[in-house]
Amino acid sequence: MKKVMVNNGGCFKPMNSTSMAISPSSPKSNCRKRILLFVCCGLITIISFGQQALGQRPRVKSPVLNADGTVTFNFFDPTAQRVTVTGDFREISGQTLQMVKQENGVWTATTNTLNPELYSYSFSVDGQRIIDPSNSYVNRDISTLSNIFIVTKEKDDKGHLYQVNDVPHGTLSRVWYDSPTLGQQRRMTVYLPAAYDGKKRFPVMYLLHGHGGDETAWGDLGRASQIMDNLIAEGKCVPMIVVMPNGNPTCNAAPGWWHEGMYTPDGNAFNNRGAKATMEESFMDIVNFVDDNYKTIRKRSARAVTGLSMGGGHTFGISYLYPEVFDYYGLQSAAARVKRNDVQFDAQMARLFESKPRLYWIAIGKDDFLMQMNNELRGYLDGHNYLYEYYENDGGHIWRNWRIYLAMFAQKIFKD
Amino acid sequence: MKKVMVNNGGCFKPMNSTSMAISPSSPKSNCRKRILLFVCCGLITIISFGQQALGQRPRVKSPVLNADGTVTFNFFDPTAQRVTVTGDFREISGQTLQMVKQENGVWTATTNTLNPELYSYSFSVDGQRIIDPSNSYVNRDISTLSNIFIVTKEKDDKGHLYQVNDVPHGTLSRVWYDSPTLGQQRRMTVYLPAAYDGKKRFPVMYLLHGHGGDETAWGDLGRASQIMDNLIAEGKCVPMIVVMPNGNPTCNAAPGWWHEGMYTPDGNAFNNRGAKATMEESFMDIVNFVDDNYKTIRKRSARAVTGLSMGGGHTFGISYLYPEVFDYYGLQSAAARVKRNDVQFDAQMARLFESKPRLYWIAIGKDDFLMQMNNELRGYLDGHNYLYEYYENDGGHIWRNWRIYLAMFAQKIFKD
Repeated sequence: MKKVMVNNGGCFKPMNSTSMAISPSSPKSNCRKRILLFVCCGLITIISFGQQALGQRPRVKSPVLNADGTVTFNFFDPTAQRVTVTGDFREISGQTLQMVKQENGVWTATTNTLNPELYSYSFSVDGQRIIDPSNSYVNRDISTLSNIFIVTKEKDDKGHLYQVNDVPHGTLSRVWYDSPTLGQQRRMTVYLPAAYDGKKRFPVMYLLHGHGGDETAWGDLGRASQIMDNLIAEGKCVPMIVVMPNGNPTCNAAPGWWHEGMYTPDGNAFNNRGAKATMEESFMDIVNFVDDNYKTIRKRSARAVTGLSMGGGHTFGISYLYPEVFDYYGLQSAAARVKRNDVQFDAQMARLFESKPRLYWIAIGKDDFLMQMNNELRGYLDGHNYLYEYYENDGGHIWRNWRIYLAMFAQKIFKD
Repeated sequence: MKKVMVNNGGCFKPMNSTSMAISPSSPKSNCRKRILLFVCCGLITIISFGQQALGQRPRVKSPVLNADGTVTFNFFDPTAQRVTVTGDFREISGQTLQMVKQENGVWTATTNTLNPELYSYSFSVDGQRIIDPSNSYVNRDISTLSNIFIVTKEKDDKGHLYQVNDVPHGTLSRVWYDSPTLGQQRRMTVYLPAAYDGKKRFPVMYLLHGHGGDETAWGDLGRASQIMDNLIAEGKCVPMIVVMPNGNPTCNAAPGWWHEGMYTPDGNAFNNRGAKATMEESFMDIVNFVDDNYKTIRKRSARAVTGLSMGGGHTFGISYLYPEVFDYYGLQSAAARVKRNDVQFDAQMARLFESKPRLYWIAIGKDDFLMQMNNELRGYLDGHNYLYEYYENDGGHIWRNWRIYLAMFAQKIFKD
């Protein structure tokens, strides 16, 4: 029986710490307890919403997904002069939607009917970009947070594919591995399908992010675990392990998740200066770790690699460095540069296509700023009669396309 | 060779999608490539920071951790009339710090010297609460986002304990399990220590959140994986598995992570109405799953359970329901209500303490609103001469205390 008193540096109730206690329920609850619980709940309400109650602050719900397929944004700010909302629900990038102030101080705006999709948005309040305080669902892209919402209409649409449905769910893990080539402990994200039981073996898709991204990008912005859960549940793709490594050789992990501290990532965070090797050169460290630590099918026909933008470039490099390791390649909006007048490169590419990969897939949007680079790559492949598949759709260098490409690629692999 | 064209619903470049491509590096880089890369980087800069450049927007860094232990907040808003910052760095809860506008439109304020700690804060701009747009590090508490930063001075302080250091890191997984008692697939968070290799067996700490929380709370607000990584690396606690389940019987997972969609959690999201059983009644589903799927030491002396607030109440209930299963109990700011004049409860409590648990630990802050309930519990235990340890410190019902309690409890268990 000891009583220890320490000074923990002050006694604060943070304004946003609304975690409250309720009594543990009991099968034999009685009236007195119910009253106590009621009082307790009332207290919680007062504490939690005290600020709102005092200022007659209306309870704001935003965004509201309306039955007609439109979406309404709401934002309470009686003193603001001008409030707009912008995001990828607009038909033209950067176009804003003017919000209109109601008598109760709530600004509101409603979109046109939106197609099924995962959308992101933010508000501008008198010129200041802010995220919607009524929506705690956010994605981080490099160092910028944006709110998200999903529109879905029917079971076969993109919104349904990107949302969490009542299906078996895989495990999503942040895993540290040793990279001898880079001389680092590094973090990756690993998706294990719901059927993974530590006994049966599964094929592996390596899924690579773009410049500015990290090992969280495909899971958050790319909705990878939702897409995989849903495709597997619908029988549209084979249950597989998905490995999402960090593609920045000078970062051990996503910002805030390694010993560099809570820095603000910008372009300088992602240069390769001082790295012991490139992502491609160190890639077999990842494959070896995965084969050593998970129940994988350890053969070429059970390994795929795909990535977006810089990660598409990595996929390209990996394809001609390790053709014996992977059988399926997906270059998404790829920063994949053909090496001109390079005998070693030509020989590597010849070896790759002589090995007859089961899929060499190039996907890009019409308006992608890397279209010219991809045209050059295709010209090179065509010139050598190297077999590949090409997919071109609308849009540019955006996550909306990469989610589409992931879902398409996942359905193409490990089926024969 | 096939070319497929689809309409993916528009061609947008979302304002915040700043993911850019760079060419994959090559050991044989030449001058032409460097120029191209330079042009490319320039383009990235222009696109990424285009808005800032056009409006002569100054580059704002916030928060700035100064060498003297103070912290400076900065916020650009030339048109705002009044900007303040508040958070748990203030000595009095809810107290704000006035920010002062500079000529360049940047509002700024500097704190007093701060003790080592994880702090959270937000801005108020003309009465509107917003998070700091220069700081992408946020925690969610129920449905409210707040920015965070960590102050650390030396190796032994709390800031150092809560930050990510250059030590071996455990694996953090979001895992779905079957709960036959609740009739649900449910999600839990599992921390595996860095030494976990699938062969050696480890003891397990079950770590339970409070009302309004979920299976992400201890990892995010509680910094559990950082605390465990650091304590284990320093040899201050035994390597162990930490299981953080979801304690809300009517929620399968955290908001947005189950098929209820992206709802805004409030008090109603966490009532137990319609649940097939309570958390305590269904708890052995969790223990059985963990023992079946991880390399655990399957005996009482290798199992601990601890929780905060509602989770402290769960710990209390679990202690008298399953005394044969757990040897270490930690009640943190616990909603642990003694059942008066209840013969069954008295018998359960007698059985619990006859089983001589190695640790029955009660921790609470002086200003905690559950102090009276804890006093009653201690009175009951004292009245029956049941052995327990008591720890009381400053402060109330706040995460700052729960992080302290976790670190203390982790160092007390599995050592004999």
